[in-house]
Amino acid sequence: MPTPKHPESAAITIFGARGDLTQRKLIPALYNLYLDGHLPEKFAIFCVDFVTIGEQEYRDEMLKGVNEFSRSGKAGPNTWAGFAKRVQYIQGDFQQDVTYTTLRSKIKEFEQGRGIRMFYFAVAPRFIEVISDELCKNKLCTIDTHHRVVVEKPFGTDLASARKLNRYLSSRFQEKQIFHIDHYLGKEMVQNILAFRFANHIFDPLWNKDFIDHVEISVAEEVSVGKRGGYYDTSGALRDMIQNHLLQLLCIIAMDCPKAYEAEAIRDSKVKVLKNIRMMTDKEVFTNVVRGQYTQGEVQGEQRVAYREEPNVSPESNTETFVAARLFIDNSRWKGVPFFLRTGKSMPRQSSVIMVQFKESPNAIFKDNNVPNRLVISIQPELEIGLVFESKVPGLHMQLVPVKMNFMYTDNYSQSLPEAYETLLLDVLEGDATSFMRTDQIEAAWKVVMPILDAWKASPSKQLRFYPAGTWGPSEADSLLKPHAKDWYKLEAPPRVTQNMKSIE
Amino acid sequence: MPTPKHPESAAITIFGARGDLTQRKLIPALYNLYLDGHLPEKFAIFCVDFVTIGEQEYRDEMLKGVNEFSRSGKAGPNTWAGFAKRVQYIQGDFQQDVTYTTLRSKIKEFEQGRGIRMFYFAVAPRFIEVISDELCKNKLCTIDTHHRVVVEKPFGTDLASARKLNRYLSSRFQEKQIFHIDHYLGKEMVQNILAFRFANHIFDPLWNKDFIDHVEISVAEEVSVGKRGGYYDTSGALRDMIQNHLLQLLCIIAMDCPKAYEAEAIRDSKVKVLKNIRMMTDKEVFTNVVRGQYTQGEVQGEQRVAYREEPNVSPESNTETFVAARLFIDNSRWKGVPFFLRTGKSMPRQSSVIMVQFKESPNAIFKDNNVPNRLVISIQPELEIGLVFESKVPGLHMQLVPVKMNFMYTDNYSQSLPEAYETLLLDVLEGDATSFMRTDQIEAAWKVVMPILDAWKASPSKQLRFYPAGTWGPSEADSLLKPHAKDWYKLEAPPRVTQNMKSIE
Repeated sequence: MPTPKHPESAAITIFGARGDLTQRKLIPALYNLYLDGHLPEKFAIFCVDFVTIGEQEYRDEMLKGVNEFSRSGKAGPNTWAGFAKRVQYIQGDFQQDVTYTTLRSKIKEFEQGRGIRMFYFAVAPRFIEVISDELCKNKLCTIDTHHRVVVEKPFGTDLASARKLNRYLSSRFQEKQIFHIDHYLGKEMVQNILAFRFANHIFDPLWNKDFIDHVEISVAEEVSVGKRGGYYDTSGALRDMIQNHLLQLLCIIAMDCPKAYEAEAIRDSKVKVLKNIRMMTDKEVFTNVVRGQYTQGEVQGEQRVAYREEPNVSPESNTETFVAARLFIDNSRWKGVPFFLRTGKSMPRQSSVIMVQFKESPNAIFKDNNVPNRLVISIQPELEIGLVFESKVPGLHMQLVPVKMNFMYTDNYSQSLPEAYETLLLDVLEGDATSFMRTDQIEAAWKVVMPILDAWKASPSKQLRFYPAGTWGPSEADSLLKPHAKDWYKLEAPPRVTQNMKSIE
Repeated sequence: MPTPKHPESAAITIFGARGDLTQRKLIPALYNLYLDGHLPEKFAIFCVDFVTIGEQEYRDEMLKGVNEFSRSGKAGPNTWAGFAKRVQYIQGDFQQDVTYTTLRSKIKEFEQGRGIRMFYFAVAPRFIEVISDELCKNKLCTIDTHHRVVVEKPFGTDLASARKLNRYLSSRFQEKQIFHIDHYLGKEMVQNILAFRFANHIFDPLWNKDFIDHVEISVAEEVSVGKRGGYYDTSGALRDMIQNHLLQLLCIIAMDCPKAYEAEAIRDSKVKVLKNIRMMTDKEVFTNVVRGQYTQGEVQGEQRVAYREEPNVSPESNTETFVAARLFIDNSRWKGVPFFLRTGKSMPRQSSVIMVQFKESPNAIFKDNNVPNRLVISIQPELEIGLVFESKVPGLHMQLVPVKMNFMYTDNYSQSLPEAYETLLLDVLEGDATSFMRTDQIEAAWKVVMPILDAWKASPSKQLRFYPAGTWGPSEADSLLKPHAKDWYKLEAPPRVTQNMKSIE
């Protein structure tokens, strides 16, 4: 039986219905899908959590979430009513069988014939196994073309635990039923990178070691660890950001053209990149990876305490809140081209940017030509593709200056863009796994970071660099770029007019 | 003795001082150079013409020209006074010796030591020889490092007459003293093409038959033949525009990287292009070149008479006011790539644009990917470099649409740009011939158009196509593009926001 592209009915179950993710992301995304007519006419949302709360009260909580966090703004009363009546709250312990028999009877009652079922695990990792077990036991997730589970990161805490989790899931569900979500892959600009790279002939021939000098992938967060100290202090930036988001961006930038625009072919191409990343020895970890931790400082005019003073963080913590890494992909396309990854918390602004720097021109006819071409893909908060090139300064003599040609979403699209979770939830309903991580990708990504985790574990405080909150990280992250660059591409908000001529000579 | 880069003094002589060019272009350009401090402290402008007119009256005429045509707007009284006192009117017949002895004594009186001399031939072609003769006879233009003549097009009316003229000039002046002016080469964006092509590594590897499908060079004029009917009817668009401006643009787009940024190396590269253009047989002329003539119509809301009804135009004239041509450059870089050239009068708007269309992507992973990449260089009135590429339409599914990343001068430079004549006159004063046509270039360009001139001369009305004023020319010009394109790149004014999303699906 083929996977239906436009399902007749959808029974969506969220485990962890009273968590932040559900209120801020999942329900607003489902509401917007409903608002724009993307949900099947017949759908129900079963929201499962431990806490006792009345159905109306729960719906009001969700409405608050939509009003506060949805891109579509305050929900209209009629539309909300139409949506809210499909939302049912099921009070239940994830570890008790009765929760699932209740859920089962409600789904059975809802479904007429065969519909799509989605089970979203918006829960702490420790619940994944028991929920999976219960779904199996109660035969809730059996039909591989129609029944799907969605798993949120972290997918384990290291390679061994990830493998264990994967084996657990794989023995209960088919691979095609398991949707490992990484919301970065749902971001509009990330989805556009694939189109940009493979639908435009002119960049393809340049996309290799002969023309590209290096690549920088930066995901800067303005936020501190906030209330997540308890979790974060056992995790750190390497696990929290690099292992998933940044390595996924690296895959999209570095992958070969897939054989088709189709989930398996795309994921085959991506996993090949991960498998070709050069493994580091212990010693290499300390010359190729910089770890940092923020100290007190000021971000956007607001005082920040040091990471070690954050709630639920050990005062002697060596957990990294910043990572910069130099990776190499040992294949014929990328041999010798460094990929610089960088992420950190408490930085001057939120900004995710991929910068591809091309080699300098071998033409030496312009002597002052020392600024190489750069392709700049801004993922958030700006959505923008720009090409930095050398141009003559208007005036009576030949003088060159780097300028940027730009394509900005704000200039070209007036409406708000779908959020990553909208895109991804619809993908799950439609059975499109293109933008989800396959099990082998997750393990391959852990393999890349394991040597770093191991080296750091063996020497917990060695070369841990401190940087004041509100800065771009420790200076060692700049040194890492040598000799390819002096410093990282600046993650500044683009002014509308980027450059004014001071004088036309 | 080396050519001085910043001359101590300059004696500028304009023959044809009461012509349109002098009032509209030369004096305003010299005034702006003066205003911006680019003229040497010691300079004089000797304005020679036949008509008797008082010095003050002449200066007032020139002031009127500056006020009306200069980009700097109305001249300030003090600045103008400082400039005007260097302007001397010399009444004289170009064919009389006394004119030159007067000029000679004035220059001698002005010069202290060795200064730069520029003799600008803003005269009808029939005067070039006699003025050259007299300059020689009176030893006015003898020192090859300091004394220069500037010649305006037309450089002959065919290869034979151009050769004759060139021999005449070459026997009187050194090549380095002769500046053949083509004001297109002084345009800011044209000068930038060289920088764009050779200072940016990423386009160089794509700049050949493997990646480029075809090139379009369009120079559309909104004006009719106006008051120039007498001259134009004996000339036509091929001689007036293609032989010089469009072939020069073709050279800049198609040339190999010169060995150095230096006049001789650049002109060597350009002339190589002209020599590699495939010659047409008589028959090929009629399949590769479309000639058109405008009939009555409406341009920008204004009624226009047919070309044959214009003043001083023969009512049976077969002179072309429009040309579209398909040229091939038979070298290893361009084998098989058509270069489409198009120019015409009485078109819907003035616009000069070079469009480089790349080949379609061999990746077939996006099925609806059928819009190839285009590089669009807008020379006038917009100054803009843009790259058309395929991008994902924001929304929940993968759908592609061509969009454009842009670099616009108006966004980036707030001041008015120097006019072509400013750039070029300063080049002459500084002895920089980079943007001027060398004698061999002129002859090579005539060689390219001679088969067309000859074929048309033999069959004066054969396949002369008519197009209403206010249209983009005869439809045969579109057919010429087949199979590379259905129609020419649209020369429309770019709206600030080029595309609005109608709906985000």
